Amino acid sequence: MDIELITIGNELLLGQVLDTHQQWLGQRLAERGRILSRQLTVPDEGESICGAVQVAMSRSQLVITTGGLGPTSDDLTRGLLADFFGRPLSRDAAVEAHIEDYFRKRNRSMPDSVLVQAQVPKDAVVFPNLHGTAPGLGIKLSPNPFGTNVDPAWLIMLPGPPRELRPMFAEQVLPFLEKNFPLEQEFHHRILRSLGIGESMVEEKLKDVIRPFLDRGLELGYCARIGQVDIRLSGSGPDMPIVIAEAETVVRKAIGKHIYGIDGQTIAQAVVERLIAIGETVAVAESCTGGLLGHQITNVPGASAVFAGGVLSYSNAMKEKLLGVNASILSKDGAVSKSVAIEMAEGVLEASCADHALSITGIAGPTGGSPEKPVGTVWLGLASKGCRSIAIRKFHPFGRESFKNATVNYALNMLLRRLNKTAK
Amino acid sequence: MDIELITIGNELLLGQVLDTHQQWLGQRLAERGRILSRQLTVPDEGESICGAVQVAMSRSQLVITTGGLGPTSDDLTRGLLADFFGRPLSRDAAVEAHIEDYFRKRNRSMPDSVLVQAQVPKDAVVFPNLHGTAPGLGIKLSPNPFGTNVDPAWLIMLPGPPRELRPMFAEQVLPFLEKNFPLEQEFHHRILRSLGIGESMVEEKLKDVIRPFLDRGLELGYCARIGQVDIRLSGSGPDMPIVIAEAETVVRKAIGKHIYGIDGQTIAQAVVERLIAIGETVAVAESCTGGLLGHQITNVPGASAVFAGGVLSYSNAMKEKLLGVNASILSKDGAVSKSVAIEMAEGVLEASCADHALSITGIAGPTGGSPEKPVGTVWLGLASKGCRSIAIRKFHPFGRESFKNATVNYALNMLLRRLNKTAK
Repeated sequence: MDIELITIGNELLLGQVLDTHQQWLGQRLAERGRILSRQLTVPDEGESICGAVQVAMSRSQLVITTGGLGPTSDDLTRGLLADFFGRPLSRDAAVEAHIEDYFRKRNRSMPDSVLVQAQVPKDAVVFPNLHGTAPGLGIKLSPNPFGTNVDPAWLIMLPGPPRELRPMFAEQVLPFLEKNFPLEQEFHHRILRSLGIGESMVEEKLKDVIRPFLDRGLELGYCARIGQVDIRLSGSGPDMPIVIAEAETVVRKAIGKHIYGIDGQTIAQAVVERLIAIGETVAVAESCTGGLLGHQITNVPGASAVFAGGVLSYSNAMKEKLLGVNASILSKDGAVSKSVAIEMAEGVLEASCADHALSITGIAGPTGGSPEKPVGTVWLGLASKGCRSIAIRKFHPFGRESFKNATVNYALNMLLRRLNKTAK
Repeated sequence: MDIELITIGNELLLGQVLDTHQQWLGQRLAERGRILSRQLTVPDEGESICGAVQVAMSRSQLVITTGGLGPTSDDLTRGLLADFFGRPLSRDAAVEAHIEDYFRKRNRSMPDSVLVQAQVPKDAVVFPNLHGTAPGLGIKLSPNPFGTNVDPAWLIMLPGPPRELRPMFAEQVLPFLEKNFPLEQEFHHRILRSLGIGESMVEEKLKDVIRPFLDRGLELGYCARIGQVDIRLSGSGPDMPIVIAEAETVVRKAIGKHIYGIDGQTIAQAVVERLIAIGETVAVAESCTGGLLGHQITNVPGASAVFAGGVLSYSNAMKEKLLGVNASILSKDGAVSKSVAIEMAEGVLEASCADHALSITGIAGPTGGSPEKPVGTVWLGLASKGCRSIAIRKFHPFGRESFKNATVNYALNMLLRRLNKTAK
């Protein structure tokens, strides 16, 4: 089954908005054994939209569009495609009632223009919008005038805002797809996520041991980001779960100490899940990462059971006052030093009564570096109840945001390794 | 001039990786008056890649690909397209020396496989990779076998990792484009960014006053996210700067109190720049947002001059111990309350000696709600030296991450309004 995604909007091509639909929809489809064949972004312009939809429907059973269903003048999708497919629009009383109710409940006055969202093409399936006003719309082409080999072909138009699109897709569109497009062969996949080893080294270590599995139909893919490599094992058919499980064993044997998690799991999730499992807590003392470590931890649902909080000790005064870092050590060793990293971790461990504490102190840049401590230098500390505190110096000369991300990932991995070691 | 972007990678279609190239490249091009015409993502598969490049080069003067230049077996782009265009690959000594040097400087052993990245197609322009190993490659098609109206057409292949691609594009590819594709007519644009007003209300308030400018060639676009609407004014030609400036005045007259910034400016940037300008500082006390507020502030270069740090008071114990929140108020009013929000803000103001302090205490969900305080309820506090403290209750029932984002934006806007008011 071929599925294409067309995201519509000048704001995407101008870079005003980050398109997250490809990733989110791609993940949801892959989890259900359906792979997005391609994704296209076109501007809010009639010929581009119709042309793209026509080409996509000539070769794919399902074409999903996002965006352009709202009430403003640059929202073209609904009217344009209804017209292109010869499906006259008419008012849907249920959608109209929902829109009126939506405004009433929020005590907001309703501009007349919003009622255009209650216009529905003839014979379209309506996916009600429980988190906004524009419903999703499904149109079945059978016979399909654009591709004789693809019949029926479905066009599903979804609203652009993620908080409207996501629940609509998960709760309504996915069940619709499973009913209308049942799978012939089960698809399986497994992602092994590693930290602290380069992509070429991963491939070097795996290429010989993985070859027999490729002959058995396994597909292997790598995906590298800063300090991280994902290894993707996938394939179709009844034997594939066994092939993937055996391949996973072989991969873990080769590079197991670098693997922190599976599938969509982030390093923060791995840490939070491990802490929940063993009933322990963590606190943080962040300087140059400014809150990103706490943010990543608290993005994990359930984190409140294991996150004790922390201190953003951006200034030396905060380090002394809230974390009890010794002023003479600060002036002797400097804020970016092993001794200060350890005092920060021990300080927040005590203040929070947590079982573990991570600290980060470094130079994110672009300014603040020196020959001995260039921009990108960072010390990471780890203190735990009844354990010797440690600190590690790393060098992440990646630019401000990448510096913060790489540093936070490394800190979380320090803690995960200690948690895993203690468990053994 | 038509420019198409083709991002290559199964990991993008599977949703393993968020594609940020479209946004970043789209922004950089738009700033230089060039608009991305369309963007396509295709899998790591020969027919898809060649087919997509061929179609794109039949109609566009410039086709940019990203990804697939690395050393692993699923990196197909270089070899595949060199072959497709009949440009034999040969070893580039300078690139090879750079790769060897790259590994030597990092004390990493170099697998032989990485040297494939030193293979360069015949007559290609090489864009050295100063932050990685695979260079960018430019191939000029003239005559263009794919589109007789498009001559010359350029294919530029860029590496996938953002920290390699971004400096290469900014420092090498953009100057290359300006030399090879000078603009005929200057393009101009202005984005006005608003918070706290809905998209349909923005359009309602602007539609009559903006009409005369549309007749003068102005293009108007809206872009809405949670709690935010961007108003995009753009167009080409010598008169356009005046048209845009006049239109901006009219927009500000209609909805000025909601506009916090321009162009790519985030609300955090607006706050940091304002604080730098007036020489004041801010501290934060975050509960449910877990560090996102500090993270957003410290993402802005130069934030260290105005960010005093803060406390992640996730637990009541931390609220009492580090912020001095009264235990009896906590038990009487609950942690999510006006009184606690104010005590948190005043507590961190005092501990940090900052000029201003923001506090956030709420229920991000998915659990922890009650009938009186459902999931999504949040109190935001603001304390400033010599000013009465205030707190505002908001309801952001958007799911965990959107809740955090909307809440942090609102908090920053509270501070920005106070800073702007004080200035008058």
